[in-house]
Amino acid sequence: MELRLAFIGFGNVARAFARILTHRESQLARDYDLRFRTTAIATARHGCITSSDGIDLLKAVDCLESGRLLAELDDSLSLPDSAVLIECCNADILFETTPLNPVSAEPATSHIRSALTRGIHIVTANKGPIAFAYRELKSLASQRGASFRFEGTVMDGTPVFNLVESCLPGARVLGFSGVLNSTTNLILTGMEAGRSFQESLAEAQRRGIAEADADYDIDGWDAAVKTVALANVLMDSDSRPSDVDREGIRGIKLEDLKSATAAGIAVRLVARGKQTSNGVKLTVAPEKVPVASVLGSVRGTSNALVLETDLMGEIAIVETDPGVEQTAYALLSDMISIRTGMRAV
Amino acid sequence: MELRLAFIGFGNVARAFARILTHRESQLARDYDLRFRTTAIATARHGCITSSDGIDLLKAVDCLESGRLLAELDDSLSLPDSAVLIECCNADILFETTPLNPVSAEPATSHIRSALTRGIHIVTANKGPIAFAYRELKSLASQRGASFRFEGTVMDGTPVFNLVESCLPGARVLGFSGVLNSTTNLILTGMEAGRSFQESLAEAQRRGIAEADADYDIDGWDAAVKTVALANVLMDSDSRPSDVDREGIRGIKLEDLKSATAAGIAVRLVARGKQTSNGVKLTVAPEKVPVASVLGSVRGTSNALVLETDLMGEIAIVETDPGVEQTAYALLSDMISIRTGMRAV
Repeated sequence: MELRLAFIGFGNVARAFARILTHRESQLARDYDLRFRTTAIATARHGCITSSDGIDLLKAVDCLESGRLLAELDDSLSLPDSAVLIECCNADILFETTPLNPVSAEPATSHIRSALTRGIHIVTANKGPIAFAYRELKSLASQRGASFRFEGTVMDGTPVFNLVESCLPGARVLGFSGVLNSTTNLILTGMEAGRSFQESLAEAQRRGIAEADADYDIDGWDAAVKTVALANVLMDSDSRPSDVDREGIRGIKLEDLKSATAAGIAVRLVARGKQTSNGVKLTVAPEKVPVASVLGSVRGTSNALVLETDLMGEIAIVETDPGVEQTAYALLSDMISIRTGMRAV
Repeated sequence: MELRLAFIGFGNVARAFARILTHRESQLARDYDLRFRTTAIATARHGCITSSDGIDLLKAVDCLESGRLLAELDDSLSLPDSAVLIECCNADILFETTPLNPVSAEPATSHIRSALTRGIHIVTANKGPIAFAYRELKSLASQRGASFRFEGTVMDGTPVFNLVESCLPGARVLGFSGVLNSTTNLILTGMEAGRSFQESLAEAQRRGIAEADADYDIDGWDAAVKTVALANVLMDSDSRPSDVDREGIRGIKLEDLKSATAAGIAVRLVARGKQTSNGVKLTVAPEKVPVASVLGSVRGTSNALVLETDLMGEIAIVETDPGVEQTAYALLSDMISIRTGMRAV
């Protein structure tokens, strides 16, 4: 079976995914009877194109990485914008990887709504729509018989949403705690090693983990958006980022970390969700945890999530030193899940 | 849809599962259109019965726990043995939970072979058949269109086999390392706390974690059988427990642990599998690991497995303080997976 793929957003993650797709083409055909043709790509600054014959993904990657416009690719037609792309491109799957808008989750939510309305399956790595419009989009997907998948929104390609959906059937998630933001964890573990907050932040920026403006990470907003995504999907909440009781890591002092480390204690920015009699309670705050615990053991950019369940007790999943390839893998994993689901119908 | 269930083995795990099944009956009907009727139970010392009207699971549990014979239950017919049960009971799913035979994996392997040959789906918590006959049984299941599921064989109901099957599609497992045996981990962490080997072992026996004869755990055989199960299923190996380079924990001294702990080091019985140019290499041995690592962080009866993959890098899954309910959950999870798979056909 051949699937027509369209991309809105073609940044680092989508390009890493494009490389994996190209390298694994024959494996996907053999193992999943999954063939693909890329029929459209929309970007913010390099144009928006379609090609019914299929766009060569590696040429598109090369085009963007050398700063050229996509329209320079052979046999491509320019489109005015992503709205036209969704309307006209007859895609089977749309990969939505535009940057997060933490205030309104737009235009990603509109892209996804518009595609699902047309019965186009969605794979996204953008957590905004999950934190701001999950219930609506999930219901729309279900009405239109389309898949709505987003494994890459929390902990990259590490199974989190798929873990609960596929591997914990019949069990209920009662709560969770997690270290979900790489920038703050890199800063905290840098400070544990004796470097200052500013030095550690600068290192995170040098490594491309933190943005030039890192306030969004440092003040716990990124972790809060992920907390809401987890609660909405895993605990049937209908929360928004503003519902999270949130505290960032600005107040942490080097000397506090020094004495904590000496006592076998690590400080981590911990995201928590808990089912209470008044609904789901969500917090993000620095916490002291034992170094010898799952949350204490994750250092640098590593992440961890502990799930508390009714039937399976407490289990945790940990991702070590993720890079952009791991987020790209989330897109692949979601695409294969969609293919497998199609076979099952 | 109603599924006819049969049990061979009705020990702690099967009885905990019977309680979950009974308590969750309406949830299973509602969420999975899964109704069930227990048509046969075989035990080693309490007889073997069938009833076409269905056996009341809680009454069967009560019967065994008060030391009576199953034949005392109303409307039940006695059967000579489990072979007749498999032959005559028209079960849809057979739950095989007889005790492990670490030398030959019998009679569990014969039970499973015989049931699969008749197209009966298998759910087992017995790791012997996975370590001794996985390739044959898997192929037989596939020929007969039957499911062969065994999540409970390693790390209880924590998703391990299902994690890779359902949540890491397209990725390849290149290796693993894990703390998989609860008795040795309880002894090692007891010794870290200053208690002697013998005291710690006695505590494990008091808590019902270790058998009266704990050599099988202490000498690393239990971990070796699990290592082989992981390698056979996740890495397409065809290994046997005797292929594992195995060392137990008898050589560990209290004073070694004391100095290790002071240096932030934990000693764990680590099971490893690795893809090499000469096939899959398997080891079980005590190793020094940082306290602040996933393997170092698991204490007492907790278990952890770190998977090294090609596309997703390194991820780990951790189970905290499991009990018999978590193994019972594995049976439920496998049963729901079979039901979901039937819907998909």
